[in-house]
Amino acid sequence: MKPIKVGLLGLGTVGAGTFNVLRRNQEEITRRAGRGIEISMVAVRNLEKAQALIGGVIGNACEIVTDSMLVVTNPEIDIVVEVIGGTELTKQLVMTAIANGKHVVTANKALLAIHGNEIFKAAQDKGVMVAFEAAVAGGIPIIKSLREGLTANRIEWVAGIINGTTNFILSEMRDKGLDFATVLKQAQALGYAEADPTFDIEGVDAAHKATIMAAIAFGIPMQFDKAYVEGISQLQAIDINYAEQLGYRIKLLGIAKRTAKGIELRVHPTLIPNTRLIANVEGAMNAILVQADAVGATMYYGKGAGAEPTASAVIADLVDITRLATADPEHRVPHLAFQPNSISQEVILPMSEITTSYYLRLRVADQTGVLADVTRILADCSISIDAMLQKEPTANEKQTDIIMLTHQTQEKNVLAAIEKIELLNSVFGRVTKIRLEQLS
Amino acid sequence: MKPIKVGLLGLGTVGAGTFNVLRRNQEEITRRAGRGIEISMVAVRNLEKAQALIGGVIGNACEIVTDSMLVVTNPEIDIVVEVIGGTELTKQLVMTAIANGKHVVTANKALLAIHGNEIFKAAQDKGVMVAFEAAVAGGIPIIKSLREGLTANRIEWVAGIINGTTNFILSEMRDKGLDFATVLKQAQALGYAEADPTFDIEGVDAAHKATIMAAIAFGIPMQFDKAYVEGISQLQAIDINYAEQLGYRIKLLGIAKRTAKGIELRVHPTLIPNTRLIANVEGAMNAILVQADAVGATMYYGKGAGAEPTASAVIADLVDITRLATADPEHRVPHLAFQPNSISQEVILPMSEITTSYYLRLRVADQTGVLADVTRILADCSISIDAMLQKEPTANEKQTDIIMLTHQTQEKNVLAAIEKIELLNSVFGRVTKIRLEQLS
Repeated sequence: MKPIKVGLLGLGTVGAGTFNVLRRNQEEITRRAGRGIEISMVAVRNLEKAQALIGGVIGNACEIVTDSMLVVTNPEIDIVVEVIGGTELTKQLVMTAIANGKHVVTANKALLAIHGNEIFKAAQDKGVMVAFEAAVAGGIPIIKSLREGLTANRIEWVAGIINGTTNFILSEMRDKGLDFATVLKQAQALGYAEADPTFDIEGVDAAHKATIMAAIAFGIPMQFDKAYVEGISQLQAIDINYAEQLGYRIKLLGIAKRTAKGIELRVHPTLIPNTRLIANVEGAMNAILVQADAVGATMYYGKGAGAEPTASAVIADLVDITRLATADPEHRVPHLAFQPNSISQEVILPMSEITTSYYLRLRVADQTGVLADVTRILADCSISIDAMLQKEPTANEKQTDIIMLTHQTQEKNVLAAIEKIELLNSVFGRVTKIRLEQLS
Repeated sequence: MKPIKVGLLGLGTVGAGTFNVLRRNQEEITRRAGRGIEISMVAVRNLEKAQALIGGVIGNACEIVTDSMLVVTNPEIDIVVEVIGGTELTKQLVMTAIANGKHVVTANKALLAIHGNEIFKAAQDKGVMVAFEAAVAGGIPIIKSLREGLTANRIEWVAGIINGTTNFILSEMRDKGLDFATVLKQAQALGYAEADPTFDIEGVDAAHKATIMAAIAFGIPMQFDKAYVEGISQLQAIDINYAEQLGYRIKLLGIAKRTAKGIELRVHPTLIPNTRLIANVEGAMNAILVQADAVGATMYYGKGAGAEPTASAVIADLVDITRLATADPEHRVPHLAFQPNSISQEVILPMSEITTSYYLRLRVADQTGVLADVTRILADCSISIDAMLQKEPTANEKQTDIIMLTHQTQEKNVLAAIEKIELLNSVFGRVTKIRLEQLS
C-alpha cells in the first residue's frame, strides 16, 4: 500500500522532533501502522535551516516551502501536522486544510481551547479527523485514555500537573528553599522556562489543557473563557515551607470536576497531601489523576514537553489516522469523546461557587483574643477548621504567623471571611489563600 | 441506529460488574459510542442467581441460558464477552464465537498468554476483533497505551506491578514487619487473596500479563512457556527490612526488556530504589512503567482487579468495537499492535543470559577473611559490588549477615558465584538472591 503523505507546518522543536522520530523509527512505525508514513512537504520560515535538517536525508522526496498555504491545499497531502503555534494564522491554516479534505494533527492547545468548537464542527462536516494527543501533557497518552480507555465511566474529576515549567519551579523552590524569582531565572537559564514565561507561570498554558480535558471528560464544548486561571508567580517560599510542615506539597493543578451544580474548571496552586503519588511528581514531569465511577482513580505520568515526547504524541495520532483513514467517518472515535449530537450544556461554575478546602496564612499581633476573633469570623461564614499551626514569635517580634487548613467550603464564603479578617486591627496585611485538594 | 448486541459468558465478579456498570452508565456510554450497547444473552451456571441480578431490571430483553454454546452461535449476537476464566473450555467458546463471525472481548490473561497466537490468527482470518484491555492491569488502559498511545516509539522495556494480591502482601510485610505466611492469611481473610493463592503468589498471573505486554510492546508472538516465573512465597521479612535500610523497596515485577541479544521476559521479586514513583505504589494497586526511545518513561497507575475496575476495561473494549465495527478489518488497530505479517522472531533469552543487578544476603561466621573470600569469588565471576551492609553480630552470636548489592551482571555469573560461595566453610546455609532494577 502507498505511504500516507504528511504535510508538516513548522520545523521548530516539535516539528524537528517529529521529523527525526519518524525517520529513526520508520520501520517499527510502518510495522504498526501497516503503511508507511511519509513527510512529503514541509512549510518553514527559514529554508536553509530546514534544508540542513532534511536535505541530506531524503533529498527530493520532501519538498520545502515557505508558504504554508501550499501545504494545506496540496492535493497530494493526506494529513497536515500543525506545529507552528499561535492561534490566528494557524486557525486559518487548519480550517483551510479541513476544507481541502485533509486530516489534521495538532499540538496546539491554545488553538483548540479557543477555536476548538469551530474546528471540530468543520472537521465533522467534512468527514475528516482532527487529532490532538500532543496538545495535553506531551507524550502521555492522556487524551486517548480519557476518550477511549475510560469510556465505561462517569468521570468525576481530572486533576493534573500539566505544565512542566511550573512544576520544575515549585520542585526547586521546595527542594532548595529559594524564592520564585530566583528559581525562575535558573529555569530560564536551563531552558525549562521561556524568555517570556507568562503563559506558563500565570497558568494560561495549564488552563488551555484543562479546558481540553474537561471537554473530553464530560462531553461539553471547549470553554476556555470560563476557566479560572491563577499562576504561581505570587507564591511565596514560606507557604511551601508551612505546607510541608503540615504534610502537604504545593502543585499547580489543572482541575476539571463535575458537581451536582455544574462543572468546575480551574487552574491554581494547590496543596496536596504529600502521601499522594501525584504529590511526588517532581521536576518538569507531568501527571494526570482521573477519578471515575467504575475504575476509581487512575494516574498517567510522563514528560509533558520537549521535542521527542511531543513528537511521540504527534506520531501516535498519525498512526491512528493511518489506521482509521478508511473507516466510515460516522463511526470513528468522536473528536471530543462524545458524539457531536450528544454534547452536554452543563454550565461551568463561576469561581465563587466552587467548593474546596483552603490554606490560609495570617500575619497577626501576638496578643490575646486574635485567634478568637478570627475563628469567630470563620464560623460565621460557615467555615470549619481542619488543622492549625501557630508559630511562636521570635524574640524581637510582636507578630506571628497563623496557618489554618479549612474543611470543604464554598469559595465565596472564604472570600467573605477574608474580607472581614483583613479589617481586624490585630491582623496585618493581606491574608494568603491557597486552595487545598485531598484528591481522594 | 440499533443497539449492538452483546452475549455475556459468565456472571461472576467481572460479569456482574460489567452488567452493572453498563446499566448504570448506559446513557453516558451511548453518548460516547454513538449506539446503545445491550447485553441480550447471558450464559451462567446458576440460573436463579442470574435471574436475581438481571430479572427485575430489564426483564425479558436479556435471555439467561446455561449452555454457553447458545451464546457463541446465536446469530443475533454481535460481540461475545468472555469472563468465565480457565483456558480449555473458554478457548473452545472463543474459537466458536470467532468462527461464527463475532467480535470477542475477554479478560482472560491465561487464555491469551497460552492460546493467543491461535486465537488472533483465527480472528484475523475471519475479520473480527478480539479485545483484551481487561486482561492486563484491570481498569488501567495499558493495552491501549502500549498499542496505540506509544506507536511512535521503539519500546525499550516495560516493568509492572501487575498483581494486586502480591503487592498488597509485600506492602503489609514491609509496613508491619510481618512474615509472608501471616500476611497471606490476612489477605485471604480480607478477600485480597484467593483460597488457593498459587497463581498470584507464585507469579503465574503476573507472567501471563507480562507475556501479553511483551507481545504488544515488541511485536512478538505470545510465548508464555519461555517466561521466567518466580513468586514471593519464599521472600523473607528480613530481606524487605535490609532492602529498606539500603534505600530500596521490594516489588513483584513483570519485566519485558529488549536487549541486543534478545528479549528478557521475567517475573520475580525485585529491589527498586525507593525514590522511584513506582516504588511507592502500595496495597493492591497496579502500575506499569514503560521506557521508550522518543517519549522516555511513562507510567500508568490504577486498580488492577475488582468487579468494576475490570468491567471498566471490558466496556471500553465494547465501545471500541462498537465504534470500529464498520471499519475495514485490514485497517483496524492490529490485535498485537503490529501488523500480523510484521511479527518479529526475536528470541526470548533463557534466564541465565539476562542482565541485571543483584541483592545477595549471606549468613557468615564472624571471623577474619570471610569477606576477602567472598569478594574474591565475586571478582573472579566478573561481578562488582555497588553497596554493602554488614551487621554487627549480637552478643551471643558468632554469625552475622552480609548484604551486597552488585552492579549489572549476567545471571549465570551470579549463579556460578553463589555456588562457590556456598561451598565456603565460613558461609552458612544458602545465599539469598533477589534481583535489583534501577528502572532509570
